[in-house]
Amino acid sequence: MRIKIINPNTSQAMTETIAASANQYRRQDTEIVATSPESGPAAIDNYYDEAIASVGVLQEIKKGLTERFDGFIIACFTDPALQASREISSVPVVGIGEASMLLACTVAHKFSILSMPKSSAASMHDLLTRNGLESRCASIRLIDIPVSEIGDKLTETKQLLLHTAREAIAEGAEAILLGCAGLAGLDKEFEKQLNLPVIDGVVAAVKLVESLHDYGLHTSKVLTYRTPKSLQPASF
Amino acid sequence: MRIKIINPNTSQAMTETIAASANQYRRQDTEIVATSPESGPAAIDNYYDEAIASVGVLQEIKKGLTERFDGFIIACFTDPALQASREISSVPVVGIGEASMLLACTVAHKFSILSMPKSSAASMHDLLTRNGLESRCASIRLIDIPVSEIGDKLTETKQLLLHTAREAIAEGAEAILLGCAGLAGLDKEFEKQLNLPVIDGVVAAVKLVESLHDYGLHTSKVLTYRTPKSLQPASF
Amino acid sequence: MRIKIINPNTSQAMTETIAASANQYRRQDTEIVATSPESGPAAIDNYYDEAIASVGVLQEIKKGLTERFDGFIIACFTDPALQASREISSVPVVGIGEASMLLACTVAHKFSILSMPKSSAASMHDLLTRNGLESRCASIRLIDIPVSEIGDKLTETKQLLLHTAREAIAEGAEAILLGCAGLAGLDKEFEKQLNLPVIDGVVAAVKLVESLHDYGLHTSKVLTYRTPKSLQPASF
Amino acid sequence: MRIKIINPNTSQAMTETIAASANQYRRQDTEIVATSPESGPAAIDNYYDEAIASVGVLQEIKKGLTERFDGFIIACFTDPALQASREISSVPVVGIGEASMLLACTVAHKFSILSMPKSSAASMHDLLTRNGLESRCASIRLIDIPVSEIGDKLTETKQLLLHTAREAIAEGAEAILLGCAGLAGLDKEFEKQLNLPVIDGVVAAVKLVESLHDYGLHTSKVLTYRTPKSLQPASF
Amino acid sequence: MRIKIINPNTSQAMTETIAASANQYRRQDTEIVATSPESGPAAIDNYYDEAIASVGVLQEIKKGLTERFDGFIIACFTDPALQASREISSVPVVGIGEASMLLACTVAHKFSILSMPKSSAASMHDLLTRNGLESRCASIRLIDIPVSEIGDKLTETKQLLLHTAREAIAEGAEAILLGCAGLAGLDKEFEKQLNLPVIDGVVAAVKLVESLHDYGLHTSKVLTYRTPKSLQPASF
Amino acid sequence: MRIKIINPNTSQAMTETIAASANQYRRQDTEIVATSPESGPAAIDNYYDEAIASVGVLQEIKKGLTERFDGFIIACFTDPALQASREISSVPVVGIGEASMLLACTVAHKFSILSMPKSSAASMHDLLTRNGLESRCASIRLIDIPVSEIGDKLTETKQLLLHTAREAIAEGAEAILLGCAGLAGLDKEFEKQLNLPVIDGVVAAVKLVESLHDYGLHTSKVLTYRTPKSLQPASF
Repeated sequence: MRIKIINPNTSQAMTETIAASANQYRRQDTEIVATSPESGPAAIDNYYDEAIASVGVLQEIKKGLTERFDGFIIACFTDPALQASREISSVPVVGIGEASMLLACTVAHKFSILSMPKSSAASMHDLLTRNGLESRCASIRLIDIPVSEIGDKLTETKQLLLHTAREAIAEGAEAILLGCAGLAGLDKEFEKQLNLPVIDGVVAAVKLVESLHDYGLHTSKVLTYRTPKSLQPASF
Repeated sequence: MRIKIINPNTSQAMTETIAASANQYRRQDTEIVATSPESGPAAIDNYYDEAIASVGVLQEIKKGLTERFDGFIIACFTDPALQASREISSVPVVGIGEASMLLACTVAHKFSILSMPKSSAASMHDLLTRNGLESRCASIRLIDIPVSEIGDKLTETKQLLLHTAREAIAEGAEAILLGCAGLAGLDKEFEKQLNLPVIDGVVAAVKLVESLHDYGLHTSKVLTYRTPKSLQPASF
Repeated sequence: MRIKIINPNTSQAMTETIAASANQYRRQDTEIVATSPESGPAAIDNYYDEAIASVGVLQEIKKGLTERFDGFIIACFTDPALQASREISSVPVVGIGEASMLLACTVAHKFSILSMPKSSAASMHDLLTRNGLESRCASIRLIDIPVSEIGDKLTETKQLLLHTAREAIAEGAEAILLGCAGLAGLDKEFEKQLNLPVIDGVVAAVKLVESLHDYGLHTSKVLTYRTPKSLQPASF
Repeated sequence: MRIKIINPNTSQAMTETIAASANQYRRQDTEIVATSPESGPAAIDNYYDEAIASVGVLQEIKKGLTERFDGFIIACFTDPALQASREISSVPVVGIGEASMLLACTVAHKFSILSMPKSSAASMHDLLTRNGLESRCASIRLIDIPVSEIGDKLTETKQLLLHTAREAIAEGAEAILLGCAGLAGLDKEFEKQLNLPVIDGVVAAVKLVESLHDYGLHTSKVLTYRTPKSLQPASF
Repeated sequence: MRIKIINPNTSQAMTETIAASANQYRRQDTEIVATSPESGPAAIDNYYDEAIASVGVLQEIKKGLTERFDGFIIACFTDPALQASREISSVPVVGIGEASMLLACTVAHKFSILSMPKSSAASMHDLLTRNGLESRCASIRLIDIPVSEIGDKLTETKQLLLHTAREAIAEGAEAILLGCAGLAGLDKEFEKQLNLPVIDGVVAAVKLVESLHDYGLHTSKVLTYRTPKSLQPASF
Repeated sequence: MRIKIINPNTSQAMTETIAASANQYRRQDTEIVATSPESGPAAIDNYYDEAIASVGVLQEIKKGLTERFDGFIIACFTDPALQASREISSVPVVGIGEASMLLACTVAHKFSILSMPKSSAASMHDLLTRNGLESRCASIRLIDIPVSEIGDKLTETKQLLLHTAREAIAEGAEAILLGCAGLAGLDKEFEKQLNLPVIDGVVAAVKLVESLHDYGLHTSKVLTYRTPKSLQPASF
């Protein structure tokens, strides 16, 4: 099967990290194409970035539909444009925030979300309520660094993240979700240090899209995700 | 004071209806400018339309900031781009969905939302949960007509809306919120027929922005609505 | 328009502070009459005081109805007798607790309530649940001083309140609600120190009653706030 | 032990019905004194009646404290002045609404409340949320007759109540709570007809006060129910 | 009346402690028989122990039904097999977790659960949600000692429990529930030290079963607790 | 990889249906072993059956651990003994109720559970709250036939289920979960008739266990699912 992963921001480095994560755990017969919109924010740090990036995501979905992909992944933890993407797509679309949480539920009673920056607390909480999973979340733990600056000071950031994860564990976390696509690839390294499941949403999403494909499940079109009228004929 | 009302869709007729509602109830010293984005969907019927329209809303806010408005109103009931607008604006931004609900709480124990189309139930529910007002809502009652077709068959639509409002009242509604800017102006006509408060969100939002201005309240910038770093210097 | 503000306790000093707050932000064509019941508790520190004060509030509403006011405000943060007042009144009644919270929702994602004494936590929480706004409240922060003693040691109290407000901000408050009519007038002073919206419920309520009046909205009489049978003819 | 039951309204007939219920199920060594305030509403149909009646309840509690009762019962289903009574009393105070619900939880997964009039839905729901028992309630089923008129047309009312109870059972009720002290005594008659537990709150409250007395449990005075300062010395 | 108390674990010492608690507060005409299953875990520290112990509880209920008891008590705080027991029993069954919480609600606005080990947090929280009483619980406070080791180091454990109870009080507890049958009998000793209600669930359950018996209430058999078909004739 | 599916009841026919479902959608390199306990109930219709069956499930898990399986599935929709199984197992354990709901969340905004008998409503609701997914469930729709009788009158049952599913869709269901392992295999047939995703939990669970295996995720052992002390050495 063929999966298109859309990195909603325009950072090529992040797209590559995402692709690497996906390729490490995809099944042999799964082909991964990772991409990002032509224009948009270089990182998604707030609601404004998210709104702008959403348009790029939707353009990539539209393009992807003509390219016969079997599924799409939106690789930003707050799942921008996920619902709109489901409306316009005929094949499954999974967000990495959603995927992390759903998979975590099978290995932990409660998870914590580890991410940045501090001002994204409301947006992270929106993600929980949209998915109805507030009661499964032990805490949202944020460090106050912009997403765009993770790369610059990786060693420090990793230390701070591990320290914060340990605080989350002390308050009830039984699994840690890496709450930003920019952290993709740190899962197993952190798992060793923390001794509990650490989930990279990119991998979780790949596994769920593969699962939906195997089972032949498609997005329900009877109510919330009805195809928009304007797009019903052949407009893309 | 000067308020800019942004109709997130590009229907000029709807922008005029909105302006008329606002002008009817604004205070004498309030100036209303109603506008809509240069491009975008002609009506907002689903998440996809909402995502596309959000970009237009943000462009209009940015333009408005250079034009020295004292407040902004987003005139679509699901409040598209409201949170992002608060991030980039230095003056108050109020959505008509939010405003309807908040004002209704002072005259009714429970309200019902009357809107369309049926597939927007999830989006309407998102509005409730984002605002934390689920317990104040008796029901979300939707008729299955696209927003774009209201104008074509107004008499029929009004009958259907009144019928549906009566069903809502029977299940506990004590106020009716007109859940679409396209219904602006029907408030007092419906109020006479139904004998309970019927709220046009455009008016509610004008009153709240005037209130914030009188009291000198601005959007809190300490956490959720911090100004995005990229926009902090003087980019608009 | 004419608004009657009822201070539910019998402290004349507090009635004057309340009047001053209201007059500072009312519109030019709004007339404020602030009053308090003839008898009742000197301050409202607990459920017992609240129950006794409720009778005084209702008597003042009844008197006010014969005096042709356009709206009433109940100026105690837990909104005593608000629902009963809506039953017997033909014009809008707004409580300062409710008003603070509703207005805060337009400028902040989450607010904290700053008040006293510590034992009022349950009553403050009742206010949140009656209004359905638990999810918008970051915290209820109480200092352990009786309301009646605020005046005696104002400087100390203010320092303690500011310190406590800063703790609230650290745990997510984006606006501070002054949770006691006895704190009326401290809003702008605190706003300067804390750098986020600080809301005096008396002002918020004045603005909401003016808004309801402009829009011609009255309390819904179809269910919860039906006029009591005994009062339906002309008993007051 | 000696229990004082306070009927918050001034209907002598209702006080007698209440006393009869209590006496039928009290233990042999329990003495019941049923009383009602000297003045107040003849029936409690709304928030206004409840506020007025609360003062009478508190006066009866105060009187009772000098008469060395071992416990108090407030015999109106919405439990008026219950929290204030706990503040001023040194012995247990139990409301019949609360008692009905708590006892029902031991014999049924979900209960329904059967009461009147229709406009009391909000007040009944307040009772549920104050007690935190929303999830145990299958439905609040109200007939639209004022409490004061139950006696006039008892046969009709009973038929209507039974019919309504059957509707409640169809939607998941496993126990029926008689949601008004005016229905005291109908429990076993309805139980026979409906074939599930039917609970008279007066009896439930007597049993709970006896239980608290046997076990030597008193109201916690550390936070919510602290004795009001004004009453701490010997003011009653 | 005759009550059978089932200690779900096989510790004879614990069964004796439980019996002593029950006998201290039972009414004179109540006969207590305390017992434990023939086989099963020696202490219940986790879901696994609970599942195994449930079978023993059900066997004891079945035996008890032939012995004409008037009521059953399951004496483990997480109430193992309570719902299944209600299905197969014709007389009331009460769990000590449920009983503690329900009785606490009449003397305190919020309670805290004091128990062990730390890993039982999820199970304790299940108890709260099954009973719908989350909002009445200030905190679940657990010390990290296995139930089986309480007896070995009683003095230390008691000190640790008291220390933890004081932390719970600081965060809002107004009553303390002894969250393990192994702590039965510590109630009054702790009450003196902590100066608020401390509840031993065994006593609370005895009082509730006596109450149900006095009032003639039986488990509702119309829906959730229908007698299993296989057991309907005369299989026990 | 090797997955052991445990049918918690002793019906051999049901075990075979379950195996067929699993085999139809497993990946080529996945080996399925379906089994059921040696003794226990022939069908699980109530809490009593569930409690008895739990012991059998745990025995099968223990046996499975010595047989080097890579994962376990508990194939009864209410997920009996799931938490206890996670405590004693070193490899992933997934329940079919949980798996159905989690997978449904990626293709539908809201799902409905279609199952039997009517008295299992509470148990089904427990499943939702344990998983924290109440807000994703449009309805629990139950037909009143015991699980044990499905096979006898399959044609009728299927008609009744389809009719009930259509009612669920009318009230907001966007996916249908087959809420009983006895319905395994009806998914695609119903999907064609209903035109929305219909999920067989057995398949969903197989896909999730394969996903966990691919990603190398194991059950978190830091808190809720700690290995019971008694089983820590080498007792199985």
